[in-house]
Formats: sequence, structure tokens, C-alpha cells
Amino acid sequence: MRFVLVHGSWHDGSCWDGVAAHLRDAGHEVHAPTLPGNGADAKRDVTLDETCAAVTDLLVAADLRDVVLVGHSFGGLVVQKVALAVPDRLRRLVFHNAYVVEHGRSLFDHVPPSAAAAFGELAAPDGTLSLPFAFFRDALTNDADLATALAAFARMTPEPLARAAEPVDLIGFAELAVPRSYLHAVDDNVFPATEFSWHPGQSQRLGAFRLVQMPGGHEVLFTDPAGLATKLVEAGRD
Amino acid sequence: MRFVLVHGSWHDGSCWDGVAAHLRDAGHEVHAPTLPGNGADAKRDVTLDETCAAVTDLLVAADLRDVVLVGHSFGGLVVQKVALAVPDRLRRLVFHNAYVVEHGRSLFDHVPPSAAAAFGELAAPDGTLSLPFAFFRDALTNDADLATALAAFARMTPEPLARAAEPVDLIGFAELAVPRSYLHAVDDNVFPATEFSWHPGQSQRLGAFRLVQMPGGHEVLFTDPAGLATKLVEAGRD
Amino acid sequence: MRFVLVHGSWHDGSCWDGVAAHLRDAGHEVHAPTLPGNGADAKRDVTLDETCAAVTDLLVAADLRDVVLVGHSFGGLVVQKVALAVPDRLRRLVFHNAYVVEHGRSLFDHVPPSAAAAFGELAAPDGTLSLPFAFFRDALTNDADLATALAAFARMTPEPLARAAEPVDLIGFAELAVPRSYLHAVDDNVFPATEFSWHPGQSQRLGAFRLVQMPGGHEVLFTDPAGLATKLVEAGRD
Repeated sequence: MRFVLVHGSWHDGSCWDGVAAHLRDAGHEVHAPTLPGNGADAKRDVTLDETCAAVTDLLVAADLRDVVLVGHSFGGLVVQKVALAVPDRLRRLVFHNAYVVEHGRSLFDHVPPSAAAAFGELAAPDGTLSLPFAFFRDALTNDADLATALAAFARMTPEPLARAAEPVDLIGFAELAVPRSYLHAVDDNVFPATEFSWHPGQSQRLGAFRLVQMPGGHEVLFTDPAGLATKLVEAGRD
Repeated sequence: MRFVLVHGSWHDGSCWDGVAAHLRDAGHEVHAPTLPGNGADAKRDVTLDETCAAVTDLLVAADLRDVVLVGHSFGGLVVQKVALAVPDRLRRLVFHNAYVVEHGRSLFDHVPPSAAAAFGELAAPDGTLSLPFAFFRDALTNDADLATALAAFARMTPEPLARAAEPVDLIGFAELAVPRSYLHAVDDNVFPATEFSWHPGQSQRLGAFRLVQMPGGHEVLFTDPAGLATKLVEAGRD
Repeated sequence: MRFVLVHGSWHDGSCWDGVAAHLRDAGHEVHAPTLPGNGADAKRDVTLDETCAAVTDLLVAADLRDVVLVGHSFGGLVVQKVALAVPDRLRRLVFHNAYVVEHGRSLFDHVPPSAAAAFGELAAPDGTLSLPFAFFRDALTNDADLATALAAFARMTPEPLARAAEPVDLIGFAELAVPRSYLHAVDDNVFPATEFSWHPGQSQRLGAFRLVQMPGGHEVLFTDPAGLATKLVEAGRD
């Protein structure tokens, strides 16, 4: 299979390295771009359109077809927009503990109001947010030992918040013929309340979809890259 | 143990063959009738009463006692009615990713309104519904590879819808002394929203019950017959 | 690590024996007091304050510091009160399928009204409740065979109900700096409805917390003591 892996907030493309190695060992092709606004030394002043266009441009420039397009966390919104731009290049969308946004809403409309408020209060003057380690350790890497959590945290970079507050034009997404999967790591506890859970909170906005579940928290790409690679294949196959 | 296994919509008794073989190897007795209206070449014009009476008649004709009566999916409603007819023949009811219907309601009252509407629109002129493969593959056999999904799909036959729209007399079901178990395959994604989930959406209408959980989707009888047999014993024991 | 394990209703400190043995084998220190009002031959006429003070007194008298304080079921409310009394002695709170009570509410305010009513009706003249075995077997030991369920049930003693009906002063609990974990045995079916579930029903009242999940029902301390010991370490580490 041909995978394009889209990372989430605070992450960059290299965060997929472990997963990509397992996928390549199993014979798959993997692309894992770093989104505009992310990664060390990036310009943080980016729009959602610029962010999504970078993935679309990658698919077009490399003439990638039959793509299994995977979005993790914030990356879910990105793959929604890319799917609208180049549906014919896609074999399937895979949302991995990822946001699924409704037309006309912003990503922040789909998180608990208390969390959206806290993100705003913790933001730096340049509009970026750096996660406190205590939150990252317990909410995102709850399934890991401390050394793994620290190593993962060291990979995080400041996240520009503005694009998560933009209302998004997603007209036509519900009607797209591209099939969808939701890969749910079931110990993820970023937002405990059912209404804001990844599954079924976010996932049920997909309409019909294939559910694939695995143990682990929000950062299984660090804490269980082999397991995640296996489940990405189950999510993306046929 | 003495198991009577009641299949769901689109299935017939032979769909239990794999599970039944594992149960018999472990020393259990298994009956797996095909319901009226189901199976190849069946008359599709059947009522819910005719459907349930066939199971009751089997228990009476063969003088079966101390029965663990299992209902899968639509079969949940059937075992509710059979329990009201012959409670003294039953050791325990086991609902496996099955409907639990309230008195005076129909099965379709307990599915999402959008799903009930879609079933109606997809129905053939003779009032039966054949599931589209794309839905079967992703919603019911999400845990399987394509070959397994195709083999399972080839076993499906058209389902008469009328009996799922009949309001059902279930007076006395809540008060029956027969103990109940709910066997929940946790990756089942037929109806994602919690309200319409198998557990706790359907299960909580049982009152007190024993919960037994296992990995897998709606069709574990095909995708993991050995695992399902083991869990049926846990659900039915003492 | 230094564990103080607080049992739930109907239990006593010896119910942790299996878990404590595994923890000690792994090099940890374990204290497992029996609460006032519990255990064979106890005076059942106790208040919640007396109950919680016994744990606080243990920590002070033995000068225990850096404690991982674990509460199971009813013990969740106890560790909330102990945390308010001696926060500086605690490294982390671990709630294991445990109640988390809001300030000014009672524990019974956080169970389904039908259950609270049933508890009251089943109570003995002395205000204690002994669980019927049928309920214990199916709702609390659903993951066990009959012999294990019977052996566990033989350990139960009558529970004084009054302290579960007391509104509790928990001012300041939300603001305590002590980090929290919720250890969730996912097959626990004491209260099936999501609103009254252990996780996320009870757990989400903790604010930020580390979620640790494992298979098993409400009595994993009997049905899987080795597994529970492993997960207590994951819940309590760093």
C-alpha cells in the first residue's frame, strides 16, 4: 500500500519514523511530510489552507495515486480538506485518534469548552502553545514509562493555534465516495467525556466507516509503532 | 451445556457451524435452527410470531431443558419472546451483540432513525433487504481480511423487514427469573453512537446481567468462531 | 513504591492479600488497612469521618511519605478525604473502579437512583447491606468461574450504608496538586449506563488524570491479582 501519514499538533513528519520503518519492512510505501507551521524552526504564522495545500501539493507533485491517507489528531482535519481537493488520488482515508470537523465549524468547536479556553490561556504571545509536560505525560502518554514519555515530549515543538480556530469549508465531504476508517487507540484519554471522545465522539461524524481498535494512548506512534503499523494496514486494506 | 443458538438477520443456522464445532469439541450440545424467513429459498413472508414460535416449538418438540438460549443481533428479540413462552426450559439467556426490545416497541424503534430509513429505502419490492457489500465489509466485518469478509457475505440471504417493524408484546419479560448475559464483541461498529450501541445501549434494557466481552466485530461467528465459543461458555456457565 | 491500598464496601484489608504479595515480590512496600466498620466482627456504626481518619492516622502514625494511595470502589471517596487531610504525604492518588464524589454530594448521589433505592430496600435493620450472591456473581465477578466467585463472596461482610449517604465536604479537592490516576478494569458492569460508569462517568470528575486500563471486572483484586499489581505500578509510577 501507499501511505501518506499526516501528523498532528506539536508533531512533525519525523514522529512517524518508527511506524514508517515497520510499514516499509512490510513492503509498503510511506510518505510523512512535515506540515507548514510545524517542526523545529518553522514559521508559525500559517493558515489552515496553507497547511492542507502542502499535503495536496505533495500528492500532485509526486503524482501519487491509490493513496491511503492517514491523519492523526489535528491531521484528521487536514485529510478532510485534502480529500475534497484530490479525491481521485485516494484509496481510503484513515483517521487515527483524529478530529472530524463539521462544515462551518472549527476544530476548537469540537473540543470541550474548558480545554479550548485553557489552550487560549496557555498560549504564548506569538499565538503558539507548548504543552506542559505533566499534561503530556498523563493524558497523551499514559501507556508509556517515563523514559518513553520524556523522549516523545522532546520531539514536540510549539503549535500555532490559529488554524484550529478557523471555521472550515467542508461542503461535499459527507458525500465523497472515498471510504473511511477510524483507527482508535482505546486508552487515549485526552478528552474523557464520551461526547468529546475520539470514538464515538469524533468518529461518528464520518457517516459509515470501518472501525479498527488497538490498545494504547494518543501517542502510540511512539509507544507502540509496530502495533500501530499493523493496525494501519488493517485500516487501509481493500 | 445445552446451547440453542438463534441467528440474526441475513443469516441462517449454518452460520453457526464453526462455533458449534468448537462447542461440541468441548463437550457441549448445540442446536442451531434456521428461522422461518431465512436461509436460501425460504418463504420471506413471515411474521415475528411465526419466527419465534419455530424456536419455541423446537424446545418443546425435542423436550429441551436447562437450555442456554443465545440470540445474535435480531436473534435477541427472538429469544426475548421464546423466554416468555417457555421460561422453565431455560437456564440462561445470552444476548450476543443483540437487540433488546422494550414492551410495545419494535426492533426498528431501537436503531438510529437514519438507519431505519435507509433500510426502508434499500428494500426490494418483496419487502426484503440485501445488504450492500461495502456496508457489510466495513461495518460488520471490520476485523476481518477481505477473503473472510467475502466468504461471510456469500452466506447472507435477503432479510424480510416486516417483523423488525412490528411492535412487540413483551409484558413480563423484565420480571422473568431467567438470568441474562450480554456477550459483547467490542469492535462491532454497526451503530457507533453510544445510545444505539450494543453495550450499553441495548444491554442496559436487560436490568441486571452478566457482561462478557471479547475482541471482534459483529460477525465474530465467522471471524473468530473459537473465541466466540469460549466466550459463550463464560456467558452461559452457572 | 510505597502503596497504601484502601478497600471498598463489603471488603476488608485482607482482600488485597493476593495483590500485595505480587507487589512485594516486585520490591514494593504495601499497607492494606481494614477500614472501621468493615471486616468480620466490626462495629458497623461508623461515620465517614471515622472511616477516613483511620487511614489518615495510619499515614501519620507510621510517618509514611511519598505514598501511592489507592482507593477501590467506595475507597475512592476515602482517598479523596485523606488527600485533603495529608496531601504532602502523597505521591499520587489511584482510583480503581472507584467513586469520585463532588463537594457537597454523597456517594449515593453518584449511583443510579434505582440502585440507591434497591440498596435501601435490601438493608438489614442495623443499617447494613449484604449483597445477594446472584448480583455479586454476575455484576461483580462476571469475569470469574463459579468457584472463584464463591470464594470471593465468602470474604464479604455486611456493609454499613450510612456513610455512603452522607454529603461530603470536599472543598479544595479539585485544586490539590496531588496527581491522579484512574485504573479502569473495563469489563466491570456494576452500573452499565455511561453516565454512571466508572470511566468516564466517575473518572471525569477528577479533572486531568492518567488513565490505565486492564481486562476484568469489579473484583480483579480476586480474579487477576497479578494483572492488577502490574497495572497499579503503571498507575502509580512517576
